[in-house]
Amino acid sequence: MCQNHGVAYIEPGVVEVQKIEYPKLALGDRQCHHGVILQIVSTNICGSDQHMVRGRTTAPAGLVLGHEITGLVIEAGRDVEFIKEGDLVSVPFNIACGRCRNCKAGQTGICLNVNPGRAGAAYGYVDMGGWVGGQAEYVMVPYADFNLLKFPDKDQAMAKIRDLTLLSDIFPTGYHGAVMAGVGPGSIVYVAGAGPVGLACAVSCHLLGAAVVMVGDMIPERLEQAKSFGCEVIDLRKETPLADQIAEIVGVPEVDCAVDCVGFEARGHGHDSGTEQPATVLNAAMTITRAGGAIGIPGLYVTGDPGASTEAAKEGNLNIRIGLGWAKSHSFYTGQCPVMKYHRQLMNAILYDKVQIAKAVNVEVISLGDAPRGYKDFDKGAAKKFVIDPHGLIPN
Amino acid sequence: MCQNHGVAYIEPGVVEVQKIEYPKLALGDRQCHHGVILQIVSTNICGSDQHMVRGRTTAPAGLVLGHEITGLVIEAGRDVEFIKEGDLVSVPFNIACGRCRNCKAGQTGICLNVNPGRAGAAYGYVDMGGWVGGQAEYVMVPYADFNLLKFPDKDQAMAKIRDLTLLSDIFPTGYHGAVMAGVGPGSIVYVAGAGPVGLACAVSCHLLGAAVVMVGDMIPERLEQAKSFGCEVIDLRKETPLADQIAEIVGVPEVDCAVDCVGFEARGHGHDSGTEQPATVLNAAMTITRAGGAIGIPGLYVTGDPGASTEAAKEGNLNIRIGLGWAKSHSFYTGQCPVMKYHRQLMNAILYDKVQIAKAVNVEVISLGDAPRGYKDFDKGAAKKFVIDPHGLIPN
Amino acid sequence: MCQNHGVAYIEPGVVEVQKIEYPKLALGDRQCHHGVILQIVSTNICGSDQHMVRGRTTAPAGLVLGHEITGLVIEAGRDVEFIKEGDLVSVPFNIACGRCRNCKAGQTGICLNVNPGRAGAAYGYVDMGGWVGGQAEYVMVPYADFNLLKFPDKDQAMAKIRDLTLLSDIFPTGYHGAVMAGVGPGSIVYVAGAGPVGLACAVSCHLLGAAVVMVGDMIPERLEQAKSFGCEVIDLRKETPLADQIAEIVGVPEVDCAVDCVGFEARGHGHDSGTEQPATVLNAAMTITRAGGAIGIPGLYVTGDPGASTEAAKEGNLNIRIGLGWAKSHSFYTGQCPVMKYHRQLMNAILYDKVQIAKAVNVEVISLGDAPRGYKDFDKGAAKKFVIDPHGLIPN
Amino acid sequence: MCQNHGVAYIEPGVVEVQKIEYPKLALGDRQCHHGVILQIVSTNICGSDQHMVRGRTTAPAGLVLGHEITGLVIEAGRDVEFIKEGDLVSVPFNIACGRCRNCKAGQTGICLNVNPGRAGAAYGYVDMGGWVGGQAEYVMVPYADFNLLKFPDKDQAMAKIRDLTLLSDIFPTGYHGAVMAGVGPGSIVYVAGAGPVGLACAVSCHLLGAAVVMVGDMIPERLEQAKSFGCEVIDLRKETPLADQIAEIVGVPEVDCAVDCVGFEARGHGHDSGTEQPATVLNAAMTITRAGGAIGIPGLYVTGDPGASTEAAKEGNLNIRIGLGWAKSHSFYTGQCPVMKYHRQLMNAILYDKVQIAKAVNVEVISLGDAPRGYKDFDKGAAKKFVIDPHGLIPN
Repeated sequence: MCQNHGVAYIEPGVVEVQKIEYPKLALGDRQCHHGVILQIVSTNICGSDQHMVRGRTTAPAGLVLGHEITGLVIEAGRDVEFIKEGDLVSVPFNIACGRCRNCKAGQTGICLNVNPGRAGAAYGYVDMGGWVGGQAEYVMVPYADFNLLKFPDKDQAMAKIRDLTLLSDIFPTGYHGAVMAGVGPGSIVYVAGAGPVGLACAVSCHLLGAAVVMVGDMIPERLEQAKSFGCEVIDLRKETPLADQIAEIVGVPEVDCAVDCVGFEARGHGHDSGTEQPATVLNAAMTITRAGGAIGIPGLYVTGDPGASTEAAKEGNLNIRIGLGWAKSHSFYTGQCPVMKYHRQLMNAILYDKVQIAKAVNVEVISLGDAPRGYKDFDKGAAKKFVIDPHGLIPN
Repeated sequence: MCQNHGVAYIEPGVVEVQKIEYPKLALGDRQCHHGVILQIVSTNICGSDQHMVRGRTTAPAGLVLGHEITGLVIEAGRDVEFIKEGDLVSVPFNIACGRCRNCKAGQTGICLNVNPGRAGAAYGYVDMGGWVGGQAEYVMVPYADFNLLKFPDKDQAMAKIRDLTLLSDIFPTGYHGAVMAGVGPGSIVYVAGAGPVGLACAVSCHLLGAAVVMVGDMIPERLEQAKSFGCEVIDLRKETPLADQIAEIVGVPEVDCAVDCVGFEARGHGHDSGTEQPATVLNAAMTITRAGGAIGIPGLYVTGDPGASTEAAKEGNLNIRIGLGWAKSHSFYTGQCPVMKYHRQLMNAILYDKVQIAKAVNVEVISLGDAPRGYKDFDKGAAKKFVIDPHGLIPN
Repeated sequence: MCQNHGVAYIEPGVVEVQKIEYPKLALGDRQCHHGVILQIVSTNICGSDQHMVRGRTTAPAGLVLGHEITGLVIEAGRDVEFIKEGDLVSVPFNIACGRCRNCKAGQTGICLNVNPGRAGAAYGYVDMGGWVGGQAEYVMVPYADFNLLKFPDKDQAMAKIRDLTLLSDIFPTGYHGAVMAGVGPGSIVYVAGAGPVGLACAVSCHLLGAAVVMVGDMIPERLEQAKSFGCEVIDLRKETPLADQIAEIVGVPEVDCAVDCVGFEARGHGHDSGTEQPATVLNAAMTITRAGGAIGIPGLYVTGDPGASTEAAKEGNLNIRIGLGWAKSHSFYTGQCPVMKYHRQLMNAILYDKVQIAKAVNVEVISLGDAPRGYKDFDKGAAKKFVIDPHGLIPN
Repeated sequence: MCQNHGVAYIEPGVVEVQKIEYPKLALGDRQCHHGVILQIVSTNICGSDQHMVRGRTTAPAGLVLGHEITGLVIEAGRDVEFIKEGDLVSVPFNIACGRCRNCKAGQTGICLNVNPGRAGAAYGYVDMGGWVGGQAEYVMVPYADFNLLKFPDKDQAMAKIRDLTLLSDIFPTGYHGAVMAGVGPGSIVYVAGAGPVGLACAVSCHLLGAAVVMVGDMIPERLEQAKSFGCEVIDLRKETPLADQIAEIVGVPEVDCAVDCVGFEARGHGHDSGTEQPATVLNAAMTITRAGGAIGIPGLYVTGDPGASTEAAKEGNLNIRIGLGWAKSHSFYTGQCPVMKYHRQLMNAILYDKVQIAKAVNVEVISLGDAPRGYKDFDKGAAKKFVIDPHGLIPN
């Protein structure tokens, strides 16, 4: 039990499974008696990991990746009171102390005590506090009583682990986007992007009672995936403007709510689809969202993008048609999803069979050794969500 | 087109189809140039009509019943601007002016300008402003531009008219109860009552994403109906306490949210089920709702009940265990559903096949002449929602 | 530093300052390494203490009273990370773990982990978890990182300690009542009760921008106090009905919002003012609150009242005119104020001189030895808020 | 009574008082039997009028200006039911039908039935539906029952007319910005701009209970005005960065809430203060607003700005540092204030002396003939709000 392996970022395009340190209840000098050590049951590859692996961030070589973690508690720090050894738990990707002003307000995505550099932290991510990532065999989770969601019944949970593993990030993240955009019963919605977060958002829209969920992307397999659970799909490779494609489906060229599940690495539509246009999704959202509507933005926008094509964009400065949004009284909601706000209710939705999220995002379980392949396939646009099973615990 | 027939209340237990006046664009001396005349396509019998017919109110003989109306506009007053002859429309049961402080705030259930006696009005109901009821061939709807919801496509709407007819009252009313109780994705809910409003509430809970919807009643057929669309059911004739029955289903004796779809004519549980206990549903709701939960109360409580068994209850004064609610930090939401707040989104949910409300409440279409039988069967506890089709327009 | 004295309940009508145990970082067998020991700087006598002292509860003899505590940290448990020795802190009267579902949702008044008997705990209160009270020299505060509000500057805070001491309970409690009732800029409000919570509520209404704040009570000195900071006052000893008194002030017999700051030991109005009528404030609130309005109920209602005059009331079962509230679409908000939701913002309002709460409730600083006199005077209706200064630290 | 004069836009920099048509109950071919004719009691010059007068829009010569109107009803259309001749009323600057989906939801700033070109209309404004402006003697107000706010007592209202005249636009607009930014009791706020809207926003922040209200501008007289009612002021001509100036006042370089009361004609700070930098206020707001905070944007951003310095800006496309906002989980609220949502409550705040808005924005009453001078002085940055009194009705 004292050895550990994890997926490390090496250089643009390259990740490797390496022998890494077995976790301690500490982060450098910072003691974490409030933490636990988890044997990892499942840990997912995330689209936001790809930003690092593609070299679009300042992530250093050797950074252990992974912030979507589910595991078994095998050691609990002396100050952990309610979480016990043997508990099967979901780990929100945002690390939060549970004691600062923001955590007390439920804004666990911007905890003030876990990252000296800024508000908010995460496992295995550049500039997010230095916490070791969880695409590994073992990981340390601080402030365990606060952060962890314990599954009520282990056997029941293991039987649904492909779904429950998505509670650590993409299901709540997609759901958050939908909620921010005001999606509810009867809504007409447009979701930009059919990657895992986009699909999770589309599933969430259905769960929230939306009447029509349209999903746009340029990858046919991803659109097929969206179609498989009742979405209308919009192929952005077509020259037909987005508004017109929407009108073909719902009769009018606008929607009640729009969710940007793409972020800053967006590309143009139609014949511009080869070139990066970082504000195109935001501007499209303003074009198609009805006056008075809201735009949820779970897709990541960054403060520094070394790979951007303009000086402004390198600082996260984009050309946004705010005049249009203003004329339509739009509101805009950004930032990382505070997972804890939603994971309990979404867990219930999974456990009581209200939602089939694993099927919707097309989960494929792979071994830890297969992680590098998973990264490659995902980068090529595979319509899959890769879930690493480091200990071979996931039943077929 | 100048004759009209409608269902009138005669005496306790008796209603009759009578020749009634063809509607005018007026209510007595009050001119209604803002109103329209509808040819009624469908008009439903409501549980709250039964309070009058059972003699539990001061309704006068001859009162024309009916407040759940869908119809075709056949004449529009000179000041109607956006609704046109030929439009197929849903009529919210609450009559609202669209110009007072409450209407402007979306509280159309308590409009200040349509009932000299109190806030709020309805068609065909005692003490609700004297507006003529719509269990008839024709009816006048005032403030038509404000009140009416136009269906976007008449043919599409006629094909779903059994569902759409429920937009005038019970679907929004049940939905309102669920929303007030805080029902959302993953919620564990208890709905008291499996009459049409209770069933509509249960459907709404599912639409809102609830994980578990438990419905309690004493009539087996109604419970069967609830079971037919995925609810758990609780038979209140059993001696087992409600909390224990809930624990058998969800493992704990409490719920996140409770909705009272019964109101003041409630009866005791178990061996008390023969006797009226007007506060029993409210007190049970406090017992089973978790600390911090909310209780939605769409079920009707009245200010005067001539048939009540105690002097206090005759004035709407009930024995409520408020101390328990207080200890659990409960909140309570009462009052008539402001239908307009919800009908457009619920219409979309119907038109895009997100919800099968007609099937859930077991709609049975009857002729106007059959209305007296409908009243009788409904009063006996038939697990049906009777929809009157006065002109034979509803397709099979 | 190892001795301690506190105010103990002895028997109905009698409290005594006794030698009590110096606090440990534990509650019986329950270790509290997350706790701190405070040297108490100020600790207030609360109206809800009086329920115990008047013998209206099952409080045992010897119970150390006091849940309104401000103090200096003199010892911090090993799991305390952000609060430091020497910090001057406000203690919310509700004890909360910061780790359960309710705490995570901000509902710290109904924490699930601090009271085996029910949701929610407090210091020095019957049935509230057994935590030792703080009308003493020293007290232990568990889950200190979560519970405590640190004042940013000690000198600044000591200069305003008469105001800041009210952050532990009555200022947030009164404020919570106002917020629940929907008070905001321009509101017309009625506050029932001019005791300290009622006055704190009235101050809060002003802070929230209310246009007119009317306060009703039967004690002239308390009404004078309300008048001193801009409230309109209503003398409930008069025979004139409340609605008529309101109409004299604002021209109509109704208000937008009502707050019940009295609770179950209410008395009748006018010539009934000698007799207890436990639901009279609630029923009056429904009478005078406009249709669509909300009623905040910070006043305490209990599940068991051995001193009640009827069997029903002994179980917290009161005769409430719910039919009236329903007809007016009222909503009702009960329960203990989750102090943490509000104390930071109210602290800012005090520190930046937006509010003079100590003056409004007429704070009188007394020594620990004078506490029994304080209890007596307060019970007689003194228009004062007694603040105990056990170490003589409060400047004149 | 059949002649009328009004202020017309002639060419960049020039307005003129002209003889104009006496209003009819119609707009071109569109009959307005729901409208009233007002004798205008007061009508204010607005900062957004200046955009037109400075030639920054496509406003045609001859356009009659003015959308901030208060007046006496002298004629009521046949469909007007509740507003009566002789009523003294405030006119929200947004024209709304009261019958469309948006109006029913309270979003009167984006009514769907009053402007064929887009959602939302206003009096006397380019691209806003062609409704005749109200810097005149008489004006027509459509949908009068819905749009107008009647003052309860004419004499009382005339005595406070300098304050009440601000209800038609800037007081609600400033208030809306504050509400959108989440301002409440205890908030630390930054308001960008000390023109009339900025000052109205600052007043609103105080009314909402803010602890500290900081106002930034480059015009000393406007900052003096802000200081006069308790704001902290920030001189943007200084080189000291905004964040540092904020830290000097509140100890930290950030605020809870920020409101942009400037809009697209913004200029750089410090030594850049001569040049236009249309996104500078938005970007500054992101810099200084704490993580999790909200940014209210009542300041106008346009879809077309012929006078902009870049091609992108000519289309309302600005360089916004969205990456920074995203990292801080900011939310952004844009659009015109739906005046009706707030005017009643703010009227009460004025009538009951909770707020002195006229003094705060330094109202100066001028004659209609003096309007051209008012425009000039205001354009030069006078720390005044000019109120035109076309009939000499305003008492000294």
